Amino acid sequence: MTELPHMSPEEVSESLSQENRERKGALQQEAESLEPQVSDCPKFSAGLWVLAQTADRFCVSGYGPKVPLDEQIKIAGKLDGVDGVECHGSDFDDFEVQRYVDLVAEQGLVTTNVNTNVWGTAKYGLGAFTHRDPKIRSHAIDEGKRSCALARELGAPSMALWLGADGFDYPFQIDYPTHWDLLIDGIRQVAEEAAPDLKVGIEYKLKEPRTHVTVSTVGACLAILLELNLPHVGGTIDFGHALMAQESPAESVCLLQRYDKLFNVHFNDAWGYWDDDMIPGTVHFWTTLEFLYYCRKMDYQGWFGLDMFPYREDGGQAAQMAVDNVQAMWAKLAELDTAALEAAQETMGAIETQQVIRKLIF
Amino acid sequence: MTELPHMSPEEVSESLSQENRERKGALQQEAESLEPQVSDCPKFSAGLWVLAQTADRFCVSGYGPKVPLDEQIKIAGKLDGVDGVECHGSDFDDFEVQRYVDLVAEQGLVTTNVNTNVWGTAKYGLGAFTHRDPKIRSHAIDEGKRSCALARELGAPSMALWLGADGFDYPFQIDYPTHWDLLIDGIRQVAEEAAPDLKVGIEYKLKEPRTHVTVSTVGACLAILLELNLPHVGGTIDFGHALMAQESPAESVCLLQRYDKLFNVHFNDAWGYWDDDMIPGTVHFWTTLEFLYYCRKMDYQGWFGLDMFPYREDGGQAAQMAVDNVQAMWAKLAELDTAALEAAQETMGAIETQQVIRKLIF
Amino acid sequence: MTELPHMSPEEVSESLSQENRERKGALQQEAESLEPQVSDCPKFSAGLWVLAQTADRFCVSGYGPKVPLDEQIKIAGKLDGVDGVECHGSDFDDFEVQRYVDLVAEQGLVTTNVNTNVWGTAKYGLGAFTHRDPKIRSHAIDEGKRSCALARELGAPSMALWLGADGFDYPFQIDYPTHWDLLIDGIRQVAEEAAPDLKVGIEYKLKEPRTHVTVSTVGACLAILLELNLPHVGGTIDFGHALMAQESPAESVCLLQRYDKLFNVHFNDAWGYWDDDMIPGTVHFWTTLEFLYYCRKMDYQGWFGLDMFPYREDGGQAAQMAVDNVQAMWAKLAELDTAALEAAQETMGAIETQQVIRKLIF
Amino acid sequence: MTELPHMSPEEVSESLSQENRERKGALQQEAESLEPQVSDCPKFSAGLWVLAQTADRFCVSGYGPKVPLDEQIKIAGKLDGVDGVECHGSDFDDFEVQRYVDLVAEQGLVTTNVNTNVWGTAKYGLGAFTHRDPKIRSHAIDEGKRSCALARELGAPSMALWLGADGFDYPFQIDYPTHWDLLIDGIRQVAEEAAPDLKVGIEYKLKEPRTHVTVSTVGACLAILLELNLPHVGGTIDFGHALMAQESPAESVCLLQRYDKLFNVHFNDAWGYWDDDMIPGTVHFWTTLEFLYYCRKMDYQGWFGLDMFPYREDGGQAAQMAVDNVQAMWAKLAELDTAALEAAQETMGAIETQQVIRKLIF
Repeated sequence: MTELPHMSPEEVSESLSQENRERKGALQQEAESLEPQVSDCPKFSAGLWVLAQTADRFCVSGYGPKVPLDEQIKIAGKLDGVDGVECHGSDFDDFEVQRYVDLVAEQGLVTTNVNTNVWGTAKYGLGAFTHRDPKIRSHAIDEGKRSCALARELGAPSMALWLGADGFDYPFQIDYPTHWDLLIDGIRQVAEEAAPDLKVGIEYKLKEPRTHVTVSTVGACLAILLELNLPHVGGTIDFGHALMAQESPAESVCLLQRYDKLFNVHFNDAWGYWDDDMIPGTVHFWTTLEFLYYCRKMDYQGWFGLDMFPYREDGGQAAQMAVDNVQAMWAKLAELDTAALEAAQETMGAIETQQVIRKLIF
Repeated sequence: MTELPHMSPEEVSESLSQENRERKGALQQEAESLEPQVSDCPKFSAGLWVLAQTADRFCVSGYGPKVPLDEQIKIAGKLDGVDGVECHGSDFDDFEVQRYVDLVAEQGLVTTNVNTNVWGTAKYGLGAFTHRDPKIRSHAIDEGKRSCALARELGAPSMALWLGADGFDYPFQIDYPTHWDLLIDGIRQVAEEAAPDLKVGIEYKLKEPRTHVTVSTVGACLAILLELNLPHVGGTIDFGHALMAQESPAESVCLLQRYDKLFNVHFNDAWGYWDDDMIPGTVHFWTTLEFLYYCRKMDYQGWFGLDMFPYREDGGQAAQMAVDNVQAMWAKLAELDTAALEAAQETMGAIETQQVIRKLIF
Repeated sequence: MTELPHMSPEEVSESLSQENRERKGALQQEAESLEPQVSDCPKFSAGLWVLAQTADRFCVSGYGPKVPLDEQIKIAGKLDGVDGVECHGSDFDDFEVQRYVDLVAEQGLVTTNVNTNVWGTAKYGLGAFTHRDPKIRSHAIDEGKRSCALARELGAPSMALWLGADGFDYPFQIDYPTHWDLLIDGIRQVAEEAAPDLKVGIEYKLKEPRTHVTVSTVGACLAILLELNLPHVGGTIDFGHALMAQESPAESVCLLQRYDKLFNVHFNDAWGYWDDDMIPGTVHFWTTLEFLYYCRKMDYQGWFGLDMFPYREDGGQAAQMAVDNVQAMWAKLAELDTAALEAAQETMGAIETQQVIRKLIF
Repeated sequence: MTELPHMSPEEVSESLSQENRERKGALQQEAESLEPQVSDCPKFSAGLWVLAQTADRFCVSGYGPKVPLDEQIKIAGKLDGVDGVECHGSDFDDFEVQRYVDLVAEQGLVTTNVNTNVWGTAKYGLGAFTHRDPKIRSHAIDEGKRSCALARELGAPSMALWLGADGFDYPFQIDYPTHWDLLIDGIRQVAEEAAPDLKVGIEYKLKEPRTHVTVSTVGACLAILLELNLPHVGGTIDFGHALMAQESPAESVCLLQRYDKLFNVHFNDAWGYWDDDMIPGTVHFWTTLEFLYYCRKMDYQGWFGLDMFPYREDGGQAAQMAVDNVQAMWAKLAELDTAALEAAQETMGAIETQQVIRKLIF
């Protein structure tokens, strides 16, 4: 039992003299300068909605001003480390495709993914791909096909299906067997439209806006993928969705990559009980680091798509901090003694593995 | 080990002959007719927002059509078993008070509670009673005082403070000690305005719209009430908020009533992890029944205010079902052998108490 | 807006005169007598551990007295409505198989399932089928094979794998890809031993005893089943495990039955956040009823295995109440207007479906 | 939009030459050497149970070997940075007080807190301070008084009440008003015994071993303290208990310190849904750092009591890592620009505060 001499916080603070503080800062800066000035970090794409106005059920009129689509693209273009954007098919309800293409190119960006909005209008309140009204269901599936057409037009490698309206709220509300038939058939129809050149990413989420969303967990998503058995259909992991399902996002990466099925990442952070859509790295430092480690180890080659809802923050600032945080964590991984970690993992011991990991910041 | 002869579901269904079915129905109806045709159930008040348009962050344009305030009042007037309404101060931003008063009277209703909207505009994004900008904070507190003035004008016995914007989202975001000082001081200012004739109900909620709301649990609410120590300031229990905090809503009733501090009830149901704002009795039958039992036992004399977000349902139908369900459960309590339950509770045994309770439906 | 005359609880209680109370009881009894005196309810099997001593980490010495295996079997034999028992392979570490066989037969019971204990000793602390130490892993897989041999010896139709020790506690603790390889390979080895005559049921659970258990959700379980693609390997749904993963247990039934993969049910109830292992029907009335409805609709032909931890209750009494509650709920389903429910489900409306369902008790 | 040249992980790793790696390490070491070699960190005390055998309901026989009390004390004595131990009254059921006193002194340790075990035997299954059987209740309260006597005998400044058996499992199981009366009266009786020289710390926990524990949240705890209004009765924050209640542990510190009522800390980490009792800093880095910041800011002068259940780890190693992690985080706080943080907190902005905080590791 040994111990340092005890001082008050003020004394401790004073004892770190200004001179030492400066010398320390200079040493740390020099240490950092020795790191390779390159990056193997997956590239970043900004979901355009991150840069738009946000609202919620209590503040429907929005927490910030409206941000038109062209402005969103310009903000994305100014973000250090961001090379692409994700859009929604519905962005083009009132915006010309060619104008979008020009704006994105002007900013030196590419479109990395086209998302399908089949949850943002009253029509889809009770369901989209699973709606029992054939007309509404057909509209929804057509909207998925429109994403395929748009992805081709915009040069995006993939389109995405997050089927947030497909689920239920109350016990006994839906007939589950029919529901699942309709869901999988709907995905298949879109997948046929996407084949063979486009990737289709299915994004799971436990709940919201329904109290129960059908494609709920990485397991449910994977089961659907295995039933479909189509090489161009895979999964999208949203970091906060994985947390909400009490998954280890890192394990979810490995589970999808077991079948080469991780097609896209939606990055954010959250407290774990809800889809808080916060800035990456601000709550779950270790879990995020582990996620990045397994993205690297499992050779994930896709993009990191920023998917946040910065309700009360400036979207551009939040996106920039997101990139900065993830890049900083990725850089930390370069310091990790991978061989030591793998040896420790063979013991399965918490102490053994933590002894390797904790060195990164403690 | 004994056992009934086994049949398929179809055989069982057939064996319950049409004749028996009808006879059974008649007998059950006669049995019900012997119940007393009166009610000691607390009276119901409809939150007008239940009857308005609902939206969420994904469907900002709303799940149903806009419903103007006068229409909301008319729907409330048609609800069987509803005698009152709850409104918000902000309802009168663009609606004349006198017109509201006339409409409510026309429908044979009274206003039971005036809620304070200090969360529904961008201004309050980062806080209301706790905002560090004195101007915004002052606006928020004035809005609370406006509720007092309105309550008097409308003849309502109480006003309410649900401080949903007062909390935080990120670690280190706020200075907690200052935050709590501002919060309690703000409540005290409104309480002074309300004294001595108006009741003030503080409604707690764990989270949403902030990831952490400050008046979070029944315990936190009660601690504030005990610090304030003002006879006209009490608490409001929202059933779903209590569930979200993993409370037994029944116990929360008893805890507030330990100090005569249950001033209002906001009724709904939820799955327990989020404020789903569903129709009472549709998920948590036993928990709701227990809640009603302790409202009766602890002599709660206030209203049951319906507080739901029927996103995808007709508001009027949802409200009517809410009343019907709660009244049906209240009627069940009349069948409960209270003496037997209390004797069983003295044993503290799960089997003993369940044996009494389960008879109500099994 | 109409309303009943208002009375105090005492007045209401008195107004239900003793005469009316008795007449009402008689009518209700006659109504019940018209119901078919048969049952199509799946048969019940008692997990023998339900009838044994329980303990937890705080009360390691046990909440009740030790109950030897022969006594457990005798208690099971006395339960009305119970026709079978489930045991663990480890029950025979110190108990002769033939003696067990005789005792079970004496009680007129059958063994319905043999569970595999690869989590109850320190050896398996860090893993069983996934242990990186080949010797421990081999022991675990052998224990699975022993369950197969025992199932054949005891005449049980199935054996089960709940791999509660296979998971992790800390970030970075295990190498997920290797872990999943070992897990699936281990299951496959046991499945080979079980083929072709024995069913193998994989039971999922989100967590406990590890903070993260690998076969976590119905989706993860199903993905494993689809990878294995073996007709005799399916899934087991534990009601409380499904709740803990925020699943609708009813939907989980349908999802497994989509592939004819529901092999066994472990019945209990829980508050939803943890595996509370309580008596069925005591918390989630509607969710349990929906579960039963879909077991019936999806033609589940297996057993309902009671799997509870009645820490502070008498095991036999808890088991009897479990059977009574489930049977009572099953009987309620006979009163359900199935055609009306299915028509309502086509509308997908909460109000429409609730209007059918609520009649069962309101 | 700017970007670093892209390389594969292997290339990046190679580009960080061995020479640079070493130079970097040396610079970092020199930077660290400039930090003050003192500590203002609260002192650490080891809960002796951390160093004992652990078990759970599935592995009742224990994950490791039995560790006798004298051995626990010796292990505690070898821990760097640990100056005290916490014990339970029940430790002395079969261990002489004087022998304990000698052993603790031999190791240069002090006893910092005496905990009260009124949950670890079958007798207290249904309750302790709230038991409706006066004899059992009296035993429990006597056990609390015994802790007072022991604290005085051992020279400990405080005794503690964690009333884990006092709660309920099922709806309707207990009569809440009576229950609360008994609870508070029982605490008062022990408090009288403790006055005036001993501090009494009430530790809250949402659940486990009961599905609902009565002293559940920081708010419930504080309400009890305010009702009692005794200067020597305060609260204990267990880090994981606060997380389980979805509190910010830092805010809970401030809330108790608002009334000078934080008397003890039980330190650990957890995933947030359950009392995982893990090593501090391994899951919630930022939340732990914020907790430490507010312990410092609110002038918490008590001990940090290690309270973990290292089921599968060596207790001594886990305890040492706990101390090392917390000390490392405390040292990080010395680098925090407090003035900048406080200025940022005045803006209430997430970006503004994160920009200060993130510098500590990014």
